[in-house]
Amino acid sequence: MADLTHFDASGAAHMVDVSEKAATFRRAVARGSVRMAPETLALVTAGTAAKGDVLGVARLAGIMAAKRTADLVPLCHPLPLTKVSIDLRPDHENGTVEIEATTATTGPTGVEMEALTAVSVAALTVYDMLKAVDRGMVIGNIRLALKEGGKSGRYEAK
Amino acid sequence: MADLTHFDASGAAHMVDVSEKAATFRRAVARGSVRMAPETLALVTAGTAAKGDVLGVARLAGIMAAKRTADLVPLCHPLPLTKVSIDLRPDHENGTVEIEATTATTGPTGVEMEALTAVSVAALTVYDMLKAVDRGMVIGNIRLALKEGGKSGRYEAK
Amino acid sequence: MADLTHFDASGAAHMVDVSEKAATFRRAVARGSVRMAPETLALVTAGTAAKGDVLGVARLAGIMAAKRTADLVPLCHPLPLTKVSIDLRPDHENGTVEIEATTATTGPTGVEMEALTAVSVAALTVYDMLKAVDRGMVIGNIRLALKEGGKSGRYEAK
Amino acid sequence: MADLTHFDASGAAHMVDVSEKAATFRRAVARGSVRMAPETLALVTAGTAAKGDVLGVARLAGIMAAKRTADLVPLCHPLPLTKVSIDLRPDHENGTVEIEATTATTGPTGVEMEALTAVSVAALTVYDMLKAVDRGMVIGNIRLALKEGGKSGRYEAK
Amino acid sequence: MADLTHFDASGAAHMVDVSEKAATFRRAVARGSVRMAPETLALVTAGTAAKGDVLGVARLAGIMAAKRTADLVPLCHPLPLTKVSIDLRPDHENGTVEIEATTATTGPTGVEMEALTAVSVAALTVYDMLKAVDRGMVIGNIRLALKEGGKSGRYEAK
Amino acid sequence: MADLTHFDASGAAHMVDVSEKAATFRRAVARGSVRMAPETLALVTAGTAAKGDVLGVARLAGIMAAKRTADLVPLCHPLPLTKVSIDLRPDHENGTVEIEATTATTGPTGVEMEALTAVSVAALTVYDMLKAVDRGMVIGNIRLALKEGGKSGRYEAK
Repeated sequence: MADLTHFDASGAAHMVDVSEKAATFRRAVARGSVRMAPETLALVTAGTAAKGDVLGVARLAGIMAAKRTADLVPLCHPLPLTKVSIDLRPDHENGTVEIEATTATTGPTGVEMEALTAVSVAALTVYDMLKAVDRGMVIGNIRLALKEGGKSGRYEAK
Repeated sequence: MADLTHFDASGAAHMVDVSEKAATFRRAVARGSVRMAPETLALVTAGTAAKGDVLGVARLAGIMAAKRTADLVPLCHPLPLTKVSIDLRPDHENGTVEIEATTATTGPTGVEMEALTAVSVAALTVYDMLKAVDRGMVIGNIRLALKEGGKSGRYEAK
Repeated sequence: MADLTHFDASGAAHMVDVSEKAATFRRAVARGSVRMAPETLALVTAGTAAKGDVLGVARLAGIMAAKRTADLVPLCHPLPLTKVSIDLRPDHENGTVEIEATTATTGPTGVEMEALTAVSVAALTVYDMLKAVDRGMVIGNIRLALKEGGKSGRYEAK
Repeated sequence: MADLTHFDASGAAHMVDVSEKAATFRRAVARGSVRMAPETLALVTAGTAAKGDVLGVARLAGIMAAKRTADLVPLCHPLPLTKVSIDLRPDHENGTVEIEATTATTGPTGVEMEALTAVSVAALTVYDMLKAVDRGMVIGNIRLALKEGGKSGRYEAK
Repeated sequence: MADLTHFDASGAAHMVDVSEKAATFRRAVARGSVRMAPETLALVTAGTAAKGDVLGVARLAGIMAAKRTADLVPLCHPLPLTKVSIDLRPDHENGTVEIEATTATTGPTGVEMEALTAVSVAALTVYDMLKAVDRGMVIGNIRLALKEGGKSGRYEAK
Repeated sequence: MADLTHFDASGAAHMVDVSEKAATFRRAVARGSVRMAPETLALVTAGTAAKGDVLGVARLAGIMAAKRTADLVPLCHPLPLTKVSIDLRPDHENGTVEIEATTATTGPTGVEMEALTAVSVAALTVYDMLKAVDRGMVIGNIRLALKEGGKSGRYEAK
């Protein structure tokens, strides 16, 4: 089980020791989407432009969730985030709300999980606010788009 | 904006007033998946059978997150959950870990968000534990499968 | 010290025993304000109407804080809130943002602290978002406006 | 909306990027008060001297709340506080409990919000412990008294 | 594994389904102690009588922790506690601080874990406040003293 | 009261000012145990080997609790832990589950409380999972085994 760093030699889960790793600048971008009926998406667009700002509420929920990642993901290291921003955009062609979160810190480990958590909770919040009109929405395509910094270097999704 | 119950007439977000609603039995089932490379999935299967139990850690993370749904999703009502169970299953044909969460309570509102949150955080935890070997994993297809109880009645996804 | 119910006969703090009290409908309204320079208030008004929605962010922060009251105020009973709404309104005559929160539950104790906590954290959030342009803002006049339900009955501030 | 740093050019809320800012020593002092009837204040004084220590409970609540500021105020950066102290003092002339909180850290942003949150939650706790005898108390005059460190330098309230 | 209710037939951990159980009155008492050097205990006694109230701080920490039990113990059901009280008493004969916590609720499951968590965190807080003078303290003898209510009925430790 | 650093000269509790202390490497090891009937311990051993992994769940609970130490222990400084590992081992001779937690960080204060909290919550979780078959279990012998780093230097329990 040498490949899974979150387990020790005996198979027990642990929070990986990063005591020896240098604190360097780290950045991550994650993306995801919520697929919904065209009428539902129309409500989102109407609300964002005028009142009933679904995307504004979801953005805030995602930002706050990013700060609580280490509380939610058991083996994640706590990190003092220095940046969280979330972009939510209706995509009428695909019938989705597209979500992108960017996180950064200076620390011994990366901030990928923080970006992915921000996207996930923003998506859950979009779902919550629209579920009274559309129970068939699907949250999907949540993935890492970019990661910079750290020993393993830069990763960019194809 | 009459259709979006989370906003009042002026467009301001609020936690919907459920004071008048009866406390009845509610149940929800949500599903989702984490798509990964076959080699990654093989590590999951090996670990679950022997040591390095990725799915056991993810299951616990999902259960704990379900209890914190109202802390994460801004306009969600706090609810004393009476049941949370999560099933995680490697699907070698599709190259995924399939996740299903079931939640229940007796209360004035439903537990769909709790089930969806459980699935999302379990999926994030699977990602976290495997990201050192596979950064290209994709969390997806998170949706409501079933909902019972309450005035709007039963919903089952097709 | 018979008058202070949060202490026992020996003076030790405790969470008052409400086991014998009936669960009845409770409602509370609290108010408060943030006083600021006219130019700062103008920024708030501009943002709310168009973009940069200070009051929308503060409203959400207050709603979420109401749900965490028992985590913040040591001797407060945990309560499943059934309603939280917050109104924030620029008052150009007085140079303030006026805040009013309404909370409700069906339970053995009241929801005054939840309403006051919602107002306080909404006010802190207004401060946070405007502090770069105005450090002299003052949060004040946070008080209970109304309380209904429970053995002590209705209270309305003069 | 260039003046409000918590919004980007499109008006979307974000957690300001402080990745480039140096970690320097920061300190803040905030103040506030709870106004109450003379008989209520007499109970506070009696309790503090002997048993039923209202101010001791409020002090602890404020210290703990300071550590959770970034959980409560949506766009606040998480910061490892290196100091929190809170002074609560009955002021019989003005009929108030006067509250002063001091916070410090070494980090890329200031600790004003932490000091203001400490004062606010200490005040809410004073209210909670005395509300059975005095529902007319008013929390007020919460403001920044001093701020040191960071690019914007020293600020002292007049 | 039929005896361990926290696991299903396949051995997977879950939060036991209590949906069918009636909400009845439940009460629990737990006890524990912190053993320390006589000089350390003398400091505690001195502080409690005059200033530097170690036991007062520990009592509050235990009360607050009881409310967060379901956040800490993974498979614990969330419960709205209706009573928490904690007694801390220096025992000079045994060289200990003796801790006893009582919790109550009306719900479908018991409050034993809440009482045990209250004792544990109160003990940790006693340790924290005295560790600068005595690193050899030992927290021990944490056990359930009494449990009332529910299908399994009354239990009293011998 | 000069000896108790968590109180100021007037006896008021505060979070000790560590602003001036250098951030150095810190490590702590804490230990504790849960004593139970031989039949109960047999269930633990059976489960760990096959399914129904009591110790795996307790380990995870302890790791997550370590990250929340500053939320639970009122005067504890928040610290970004760089390592948490927990070992749980059935000791059939003594009829106990033996628990050992190791924590580390680079910071201005030590991580003893984090290690002790990890042990305590792991022990509470063992209790929770086995309480249906054995209410007489006793959590005990929770103590600091080792501490390294900081001005006060190395401490090793005899």
